[in-house]
Amino acid sequence: MAKLAENRYGKSRVRLSRITRLADRHEFNEWTVHVMLEGDFAASYTAADNSKVLPTDTMKNTVYFVARGSKAETIEAFAMELGDYLLDHHAQIEKVSIRVEEKAWERLIVGVAPEPETFKLGGPELQTAEAVRSRGGAWAVVSGVDGLTILKTTKSAFTGYVQDKLTTLKPATDRILGTCATVRWEYGPGAPDYAQVRGRVLTALLREFASHNSMSVQHTLFDMGKAALEAAPEVARIHLSMPNLHHLLANLEPFGLDNPNHIFVPIDEPHGTIEATVER
Amino acid sequence: MAKLAENRYGKSRVRLSRITRLADRHEFNEWTVHVMLEGDFAASYTAADNSKVLPTDTMKNTVYFVARGSKAETIEAFAMELGDYLLDHHAQIEKVSIRVEEKAWERLIVGVAPEPETFKLGGPELQTAEAVRSRGGAWAVVSGVDGLTILKTTKSAFTGYVQDKLTTLKPATDRILGTCATVRWEYGPGAPDYAQVRGRVLTALLREFASHNSMSVQHTLFDMGKAALEAAPEVARIHLSMPNLHHLLANLEPFGLDNPNHIFVPIDEPHGTIEATVER
Amino acid sequence: MAKLAENRYGKSRVRLSRITRLADRHEFNEWTVHVMLEGDFAASYTAADNSKVLPTDTMKNTVYFVARGSKAETIEAFAMELGDYLLDHHAQIEKVSIRVEEKAWERLIVGVAPEPETFKLGGPELQTAEAVRSRGGAWAVVSGVDGLTILKTTKSAFTGYVQDKLTTLKPATDRILGTCATVRWEYGPGAPDYAQVRGRVLTALLREFASHNSMSVQHTLFDMGKAALEAAPEVARIHLSMPNLHHLLANLEPFGLDNPNHIFVPIDEPHGTIEATVER
Amino acid sequence: MAKLAENRYGKSRVRLSRITRLADRHEFNEWTVHVMLEGDFAASYTAADNSKVLPTDTMKNTVYFVARGSKAETIEAFAMELGDYLLDHHAQIEKVSIRVEEKAWERLIVGVAPEPETFKLGGPELQTAEAVRSRGGAWAVVSGVDGLTILKTTKSAFTGYVQDKLTTLKPATDRILGTCATVRWEYGPGAPDYAQVRGRVLTALLREFASHNSMSVQHTLFDMGKAALEAAPEVARIHLSMPNLHHLLANLEPFGLDNPNHIFVPIDEPHGTIEATVER
Repeated sequence: MAKLAENRYGKSRVRLSRITRLADRHEFNEWTVHVMLEGDFAASYTAADNSKVLPTDTMKNTVYFVARGSKAETIEAFAMELGDYLLDHHAQIEKVSIRVEEKAWERLIVGVAPEPETFKLGGPELQTAEAVRSRGGAWAVVSGVDGLTILKTTKSAFTGYVQDKLTTLKPATDRILGTCATVRWEYGPGAPDYAQVRGRVLTALLREFASHNSMSVQHTLFDMGKAALEAAPEVARIHLSMPNLHHLLANLEPFGLDNPNHIFVPIDEPHGTIEATVER
Repeated sequence: MAKLAENRYGKSRVRLSRITRLADRHEFNEWTVHVMLEGDFAASYTAADNSKVLPTDTMKNTVYFVARGSKAETIEAFAMELGDYLLDHHAQIEKVSIRVEEKAWERLIVGVAPEPETFKLGGPELQTAEAVRSRGGAWAVVSGVDGLTILKTTKSAFTGYVQDKLTTLKPATDRILGTCATVRWEYGPGAPDYAQVRGRVLTALLREFASHNSMSVQHTLFDMGKAALEAAPEVARIHLSMPNLHHLLANLEPFGLDNPNHIFVPIDEPHGTIEATVER
Repeated sequence: MAKLAENRYGKSRVRLSRITRLADRHEFNEWTVHVMLEGDFAASYTAADNSKVLPTDTMKNTVYFVARGSKAETIEAFAMELGDYLLDHHAQIEKVSIRVEEKAWERLIVGVAPEPETFKLGGPELQTAEAVRSRGGAWAVVSGVDGLTILKTTKSAFTGYVQDKLTTLKPATDRILGTCATVRWEYGPGAPDYAQVRGRVLTALLREFASHNSMSVQHTLFDMGKAALEAAPEVARIHLSMPNLHHLLANLEPFGLDNPNHIFVPIDEPHGTIEATVER
Repeated sequence: MAKLAENRYGKSRVRLSRITRLADRHEFNEWTVHVMLEGDFAASYTAADNSKVLPTDTMKNTVYFVARGSKAETIEAFAMELGDYLLDHHAQIEKVSIRVEEKAWERLIVGVAPEPETFKLGGPELQTAEAVRSRGGAWAVVSGVDGLTILKTTKSAFTGYVQDKLTTLKPATDRILGTCATVRWEYGPGAPDYAQVRGRVLTALLREFASHNSMSVQHTLFDMGKAALEAAPEVARIHLSMPNLHHLLANLEPFGLDNPNHIFVPIDEPHGTIEATVER
């Protein structure tokens, strides 16, 4: 006999852009919203009974409806506002999970003055927020960034590792260290200023990455996490996933040339993946 | 004070192809392997001590080394063989997770006879296996398929759902139902024939999808899961994630034309996402 | 003084799906249409005068409007029908270029019988047609396929090439030959049966690829083109672009293992690209 | 009888990164190089004769070999240096086409000071150069940028266009104008300073985009081209391709809400495509 276990459904990739008109400039945000619901939906699976099913099309409409009236200044605030609306209006929902991603539109600067109403996509990274709440419970918010793509040309080594019969890697005392980092941070008790914390966390991560004397991706990852916790007391725990964007030293020996860390071969695959959570 | 919590690392996207030469034909497999390790690696994060770190480059070498000697006929068997090798040779590893994906190379058929040594990529889907083992424990294997892209032009309805002030969707008694399904199945006790089970599960999923009188994606998903459990007693539990590849009826009313389910607008975003686990 | 030279504009990525209901089965097509126009549009660039501009949004509407009434059985026929409509209704258009791509939806077969109303995406390839006509002139049609992904495990060699001080490639007498081919064929005078020609061209290409004793990608490409011309007298000229999907023999020597063409490393980049036109 | 017409071959996606060590900072470049050759290669297609074929693997080696000794400060200079090497060393080559793309690595700034050795990927755009030379002839160089992704929230209208029975678009006096522009510029006689011209062209394009009172994409495109020609007398001709990144006003009327240009729905497809060449 088959029975239904966990189940959830929702709407993914609801895209939304917003202009906020200030006296001297416009703000512009482009978000992608993902809604997932759990609740009293089993009959739609097992009995072809849709009477409690909120159509995913209506979830999409709800995103735009809530956005129109929203004063949210952060993706975290918007995620919670949207989730509260859904819980408040549909008794059959037991739990909402809202994920919002924001593209890296930056104010265009040509010369010195920032343009008041023109923007340039400033990188592949997405600022992210995921907010989860069960009916009657509190919001659990996780903020983050996906695809933060950074690289340093020195102060990175990798030596002293396990050597065995399958080892061909040569120790490196000065290598390129690149990553496309995905980071998530959770909050301690209290009501944080999400935008402010985000600024401090990102600055700490970038500053540590740049200044670190790296002995491995692991080493740099941990110190980046530590720096973020120091910069943001509001953050209880931070998770970093740092794929290694390898730049292999080009082998020019067959052609009688040296290569003193000058010319490299960047590769996308295979790649190392290093992940850890740093907490207080 | 910052401290290290969960951590793991490994090598992702190790690509491998293999020719198996039989008397009358060649078999060809193209796999992508992902290795993740947990164990006594904390010092690499917190003390810049790499003395227990197996380089991810060596993991890549290990994939090819093990593949050369392997008799594995399934991605499940290869994943376990590779993981066993790593656990056997490196005492600091406590847990290995191996994921293998196989591309849909199919024997080319021109006319009637299958070609003995020529293949065509037969779809976007990937056959998948994930095998996890902790030192001293048993293998936990999850098999699956990613991106199985299928569509039916009738026997799909969606009516009787919640209507409220944000509803604009019209009930449909005959719509296109398309999905790009991700499926995972876990096994009960015993040593299953992975290839055989995979064949039976996929056949059951496809046959049910085709014949089903769908009242919703939820309804079809559940009955597909049920059919798979019936076809494969070895399977304890199956998880299906079925995004809805929407084909919207083109609105031709402004031009004075009807559209009796003839011309549609396919969209990638936004899309519904329906997920559930079906178990015994 | 700046002046406007060539200019054109249009609508890209107009997606369309169509169900054709036959007595015993449905046909299903999914197309992406691209429209480009040239004509009396200079004033929109140079004088901010939009009075002759057909909005690209209207082009999109035109695609659906024409599709509703169309009896086209091929992408070539639909491209011409759409282009004729645009030329007939808008005197300022001098030249239309219509490109249509069709996805590889194939009738699902579970067991032996093909399903009448269920389809599976059968590969990454797109069938293509590009039709161009200037007002008062005739249609020039180019048919093709993009991304035809095929591979053979033997009957492929590459030897006897230029050797110089930068050569590190070793001659191969038995290697994997894979490609993701893009093909375009032009027609001679007369009104071809586009579907029939397409069938014969693709069959000839695949059959030749499978049976060929390849001395290089160039060698195989030319003989594939020749076979297509032989199979389709309607075709005047065929262009093939065949990137080399390299599968490098895994180097297991450092580990004391041989590798008799058994285990390979597939790579996406860099890759060889071989292109030629074969004509009568 | 089939005969070989145009043919060419080469190596695509050869990736290269380079560190240039200055007294107070490092420069970092990441390039992707594409090499295409024409010449005396017909016999490889028609007679399985590889004796004049330079393997594409050797082309890849040549890229790294030339890069090691190169002093090139621009992608244009490197493209020509690489092409000259190939023509000088292989008499059977009649024509080389070299394309180089550079990723948008920007010096990281945390706070105020630019980091001397750390970089962040600053956008999706690629700086491009294509250099073509036939033996005995001069270099023809085309510089450009791909994927320059910019957006303005006001000073963009689209009105006064053709209205017919298939029109549903409403005139807009204040809309979002976004694009992901591809630009190519050709040079007049003389030896331009490629880096300097690139800087002036990009600045002119961005400044004009930001300040323009747009009546259409066509209008803005032409004035951007004109501004570039004015800023760079070295440039003879500039081609711009500007897809329209549509942000549709969200329709909130069904929910009883107005939407005074506040909330939009960004879409990737379908999209308008506007292209033109502006010359002196």
